[in-house]
Amino acid sequence: MPKILVLIPIVTENLVEETEKYFKKHASEDFEISVTNLKFGPASIETYYDDEIAALFIVKEVEKAEKAGYDAVIIDCFDDPGLDAVREAVSIPVVGPGEASIYLACMLGEKFSILTVGPPYIKRLPTPRIRRMGLASRFASEISVGVEVLNIEKDRERTFNLLVEAGRRAIEEDGADVLILGCTGLVGYAEDLQKELKVPVIYPGLVALKIAETLVRLNLRHSKKAYPKPLPKKRIYPKGIE
Amino acid sequence: MPKILVLIPIVTENLVEETEKYFKKHASEDFEISVTNLKFGPASIETYYDDEIAALFIVKEVEKAEKAGYDAVIIDCFDDPGLDAVREAVSIPVVGPGEASIYLACMLGEKFSILTVGPPYIKRLPTPRIRRMGLASRFASEISVGVEVLNIEKDRERTFNLLVEAGRRAIEEDGADVLILGCTGLVGYAEDLQKELKVPVIYPGLVALKIAETLVRLNLRHSKKAYPKPLPKKRIYPKGIE
Amino acid sequence: MPKILVLIPIVTENLVEETEKYFKKHASEDFEISVTNLKFGPASIETYYDDEIAALFIVKEVEKAEKAGYDAVIIDCFDDPGLDAVREAVSIPVVGPGEASIYLACMLGEKFSILTVGPPYIKRLPTPRIRRMGLASRFASEISVGVEVLNIEKDRERTFNLLVEAGRRAIEEDGADVLILGCTGLVGYAEDLQKELKVPVIYPGLVALKIAETLVRLNLRHSKKAYPKPLPKKRIYPKGIE
Amino acid sequence: MPKILVLIPIVTENLVEETEKYFKKHASEDFEISVTNLKFGPASIETYYDDEIAALFIVKEVEKAEKAGYDAVIIDCFDDPGLDAVREAVSIPVVGPGEASIYLACMLGEKFSILTVGPPYIKRLPTPRIRRMGLASRFASEISVGVEVLNIEKDRERTFNLLVEAGRRAIEEDGADVLILGCTGLVGYAEDLQKELKVPVIYPGLVALKIAETLVRLNLRHSKKAYPKPLPKKRIYPKGIE
Amino acid sequence: MPKILVLIPIVTENLVEETEKYFKKHASEDFEISVTNLKFGPASIETYYDDEIAALFIVKEVEKAEKAGYDAVIIDCFDDPGLDAVREAVSIPVVGPGEASIYLACMLGEKFSILTVGPPYIKRLPTPRIRRMGLASRFASEISVGVEVLNIEKDRERTFNLLVEAGRRAIEEDGADVLILGCTGLVGYAEDLQKELKVPVIYPGLVALKIAETLVRLNLRHSKKAYPKPLPKKRIYPKGIE
Amino acid sequence: MPKILVLIPIVTENLVEETEKYFKKHASEDFEISVTNLKFGPASIETYYDDEIAALFIVKEVEKAEKAGYDAVIIDCFDDPGLDAVREAVSIPVVGPGEASIYLACMLGEKFSILTVGPPYIKRLPTPRIRRMGLASRFASEISVGVEVLNIEKDRERTFNLLVEAGRRAIEEDGADVLILGCTGLVGYAEDLQKELKVPVIYPGLVALKIAETLVRLNLRHSKKAYPKPLPKKRIYPKGIE
Repeated sequence: MPKILVLIPIVTENLVEETEKYFKKHASEDFEISVTNLKFGPASIETYYDDEIAALFIVKEVEKAEKAGYDAVIIDCFDDPGLDAVREAVSIPVVGPGEASIYLACMLGEKFSILTVGPPYIKRLPTPRIRRMGLASRFASEISVGVEVLNIEKDRERTFNLLVEAGRRAIEEDGADVLILGCTGLVGYAEDLQKELKVPVIYPGLVALKIAETLVRLNLRHSKKAYPKPLPKKRIYPKGIE
Repeated sequence: MPKILVLIPIVTENLVEETEKYFKKHASEDFEISVTNLKFGPASIETYYDDEIAALFIVKEVEKAEKAGYDAVIIDCFDDPGLDAVREAVSIPVVGPGEASIYLACMLGEKFSILTVGPPYIKRLPTPRIRRMGLASRFASEISVGVEVLNIEKDRERTFNLLVEAGRRAIEEDGADVLILGCTGLVGYAEDLQKELKVPVIYPGLVALKIAETLVRLNLRHSKKAYPKPLPKKRIYPKGIE
Repeated sequence: MPKILVLIPIVTENLVEETEKYFKKHASEDFEISVTNLKFGPASIETYYDDEIAALFIVKEVEKAEKAGYDAVIIDCFDDPGLDAVREAVSIPVVGPGEASIYLACMLGEKFSILTVGPPYIKRLPTPRIRRMGLASRFASEISVGVEVLNIEKDRERTFNLLVEAGRRAIEEDGADVLILGCTGLVGYAEDLQKELKVPVIYPGLVALKIAETLVRLNLRHSKKAYPKPLPKKRIYPKGIE
Repeated sequence: MPKILVLIPIVTENLVEETEKYFKKHASEDFEISVTNLKFGPASIETYYDDEIAALFIVKEVEKAEKAGYDAVIIDCFDDPGLDAVREAVSIPVVGPGEASIYLACMLGEKFSILTVGPPYIKRLPTPRIRRMGLASRFASEISVGVEVLNIEKDRERTFNLLVEAGRRAIEEDGADVLILGCTGLVGYAEDLQKELKVPVIYPGLVALKIAETLVRLNLRHSKKAYPKPLPKKRIYPKGIE
Repeated sequence: MPKILVLIPIVTENLVEETEKYFKKHASEDFEISVTNLKFGPASIETYYDDEIAALFIVKEVEKAEKAGYDAVIIDCFDDPGLDAVREAVSIPVVGPGEASIYLACMLGEKFSILTVGPPYIKRLPTPRIRRMGLASRFASEISVGVEVLNIEKDRERTFNLLVEAGRRAIEEDGADVLILGCTGLVGYAEDLQKELKVPVIYPGLVALKIAETLVRLNLRHSKKAYPKPLPKKRIYPKGIE
Repeated sequence: MPKILVLIPIVTENLVEETEKYFKKHASEDFEISVTNLKFGPASIETYYDDEIAALFIVKEVEKAEKAGYDAVIIDCFDDPGLDAVREAVSIPVVGPGEASIYLACMLGEKFSILTVGPPYIKRLPTPRIRRMGLASRFASEISVGVEVLNIEKDRERTFNLLVEAGRRAIEEDGADVLILGCTGLVGYAEDLQKELKVPVIYPGLVALKIAETLVRLNLRHSKKAYPKPLPKKRIYPKGIE
């Protein structure tokens, strides 16, 4: 039975149990799901800074996962921190919820917007990543609802209402016809938003799960020509990392 | 139990049985698969001309499928003929193997090439479609191996060798790091090509199947804002079409 | 004397006479103009759905026109339905008013907007086509005035006023400096709009006529390398089509 | 009877008579054609340097033409020197053969190449202009046959053979399906090249003529929003210029 | 000691002294700065028309500068008039403040806006130049504050306040995170604007100076493959020009 | 006297002394230069993997540098590892040699190629980064000469000859007119390559130095709107890191 590791790339432990329940519920029956998180790194990921604080530890964790016999890994964060490096490091498929859900959005409509969290003054433009993917012409906008990642759950109704309002703006002002939730912490909102807003609303964590299952089933993995194995060389780590 | 219709958009009947076996073998157990083909249209699809000869009949067939209670439809041809029109016509997900496999290729590497069939002097540039998707910067090349669609099976070894040679050119000369088989008629080659060429080789029919299953499972469908329902109006058809 | 066929790609017959008068009035004296419409297909074209309902019959009509000795064909609809397929089918020039007027607009300014009809909730984004042409960076916006194609003539003054208002928005809000009327049904508005709005306003039907004349005069036609002749193969049609 | 001025933007006088014959032969009967050249400027245009040496005098000549009652002007050089400035200066249509033929090429195929002259070490990349037009994705290549502009006529057969060879390379190696002659000095080659190479070959001078006639007939001119009239201010010229 | 010529490409003499003081103040001590202006040309540059009225005289002035032993030239105008031609003409580095400051802006943020002068109805879209540079995806907007170039100094406080307001719009409405002053006449505003608006504000004249110094120090100059030397040929000039 | 820190983002100590000599030699006299390297991280940077192994330690080192009063930091590696994160973390300018030299290359010609090192089978496509910058249309190619970073110095003549050969291919086959050395380890080759190849050859380390000096002199730094300060939150590090 193939095994998928869901790696929550932050040090916040209390998400593990809930995440495990959620992914197990949605996984196909012929897959075994494990969830883990980082020992070192940030409490949440909201900036490039957090990406880089986490990346080294993500890389190391995924190397261990490959050795432990996992068949695929999901880095459970919309930012896909460390994704390129990890794909060089290992030969099993590594799926980024951000990347996977953006491509899926392009299959469902013409223009997508990303509804995200994080305080509005920490509003990150997604355009560098989107430009890198070559999809600038399909991108409508990114709108932050101004809730910090670790506060999403504190008032679900308020978060939901802010997402509805942001989604409406994305559709009416920016021309979006598909919406992506820009944080894997936004669990359980997509269905209700979809009903309210009448356009597809994508939750990236589930897309990552289904793409990971698909890659395992179809015996596909990322190209080692695009992500070649790093040569062995001296690399020095702090104590406790290897 | 959700039902997926695989519509082979040509009049060549002898593919139905084999296709049904193949899709049933690869479908998840909780999906029911049916396969059908067109009564009117071309014997194979190799040109825009064939696309348009088929499109009207595809549209009508998918409208029937929605009424018959299908949960998703796959138009089983890499060209995705009639896809936009069909998505306007119905509210169930309609998956095009071409579109789905191109986006999946972008998740697996940086540059993809398409290995296709059809006589080389009927070589169609994929760039209009790729440009339309906004993915020109990720496209390496399209190479036809010069076999007519209906002759693919006549000499599998020759077809395979031609695909290996074309794949090598795509990788070495055009910089591709992922390959897509550009015809759903190329069943059963991907695995062996992958072993030979050491880069991912994508068979679009299977990707379409897994994306269709994913959309049904995640309760996602194409955006009716992007593909709005056509207004009723007078539309006159030849006898036998409605 | 060279002959141009204007094919109105819909089943609405009462436009033929008026269209014929209009095109004959504007054609150069050394060209013979004929106008015809479809026997099968939609009453008007407002969606991809209508495009595909019409395309098969357009293809067949243009094949007949080539055999009948026409020197060029205009598909008299801004959507250019079936254009690629028709260009594969025949060797005479086939001009699409949409394509021709978009390129002409690019010769007259920096950014063009398209003013179109059709109910606003059937508002189609032109971006896929524009992206396919590679002209996304020259496109300002498309604005629908919310009148169904078949109702354009019912209240010309209202239609005109709506076009003025939409044109103003395109210029002031979207940065357009050239306007294109996005429906060949909008006959006779361009001159007055141009006076009112002080920017070029292009009526696509006339541009198609002049480009068709130009291609015939300069002995140019579309590239058979880009649009190769489809191979003969079995193609099955409903009764009454061949 | 509307009047079109063909301005040869160089000081080489002996081209005027022949050019006049050629344009008069191809003009529609209801247009009056005049041809003139510059008193100051370069003997031929092969570089940005020549463009700028000519531009001031082109601007002044076209300002005179507008005052003299011309209805349109053609700047008879593929480089379209001074085109933006001239369009600001006057309100009559000013057509550039380079621009006009590039857009027409896009109506006839997917990818165009430009076959041009000038010594090969003076090979100018067309990409800045093409990028500016937003058409980089439609451009295949530019190939110089290495003949100086003023030597084109010295050995027509050699020039023709070099063009055939360059055209073949453009088609086979670069994927071009339409060819443009990149110099208005290449008069009289297009038809024979077209027969030889089996793809459309565009002579830009004639395209400019037909586009100019079209603009006059359809009462279209370039957008004064895109090309606003310069404010009066002190401008000091050398003696003999005003 | 290397010498840099700052060429003010207009006939307005009273800017020379002040410009000389300014550039000498900011130049590195090991560089000698001279400033000159044009004898022929426009009083200020606000349109393509002014660019082309100036370009010939700029070309001639820079040719003289190279012969006189200058090591680099700055064309002191944001429009970079005649830049390509001048780079062909000479082998010393020629720096355009517009080009240099746009690339520097891209090193400091994701999206830049240009705050410029000139009456608003003479508002020029920067997009052709930006598209030509290939940077359309990094451009947020250009906003003119509606002051004619020659009136900038008449009321510095008003000009400053208008720039603040325009900058705020660029940041809040258009998403800019870096601002460029779009006229070298806007001397001395950048620092205060930067304090007020909290994003980098770039004065292009100084950037050009530092880039010119850098090129001289690093022994870099523009590519003669990109800007090849024009061949000698007959070029006729009005009296007083050579 | 302003101070610039040159951070060599690898653990290889023996480069520090030589690098310090080199940068001190080329720095302007009014700048103080310090050079340091990492205690943790890879011995050289040749992959995304190495980027991510280094990034955390780079971030921490630059945070210390800001506190220690440095006025600017150069991350002395063509890959610019951790650049975005570092720019969020601090308010002093942080210059990446890769980014800086790519923009400078665009000031010197039309198309640049990158000549780099690292074993050829570890050949990294630069296109993701170039696409992200929005400069895909200016990029000609990247060619690796197949020498590992730590072996560059072992046989300088061989390395030089390989660079000449690769440069020639870039110019003749790929259309490059400017070359960039794609590794800051390639010290001291640029001048000789430039003489041999007759196009500008850019050494990124020096460009970074001059851009850093320029930013300090002009009081410019990266936009905090583009790179906002990360919020304080729990972030856990291994022992020895803080």
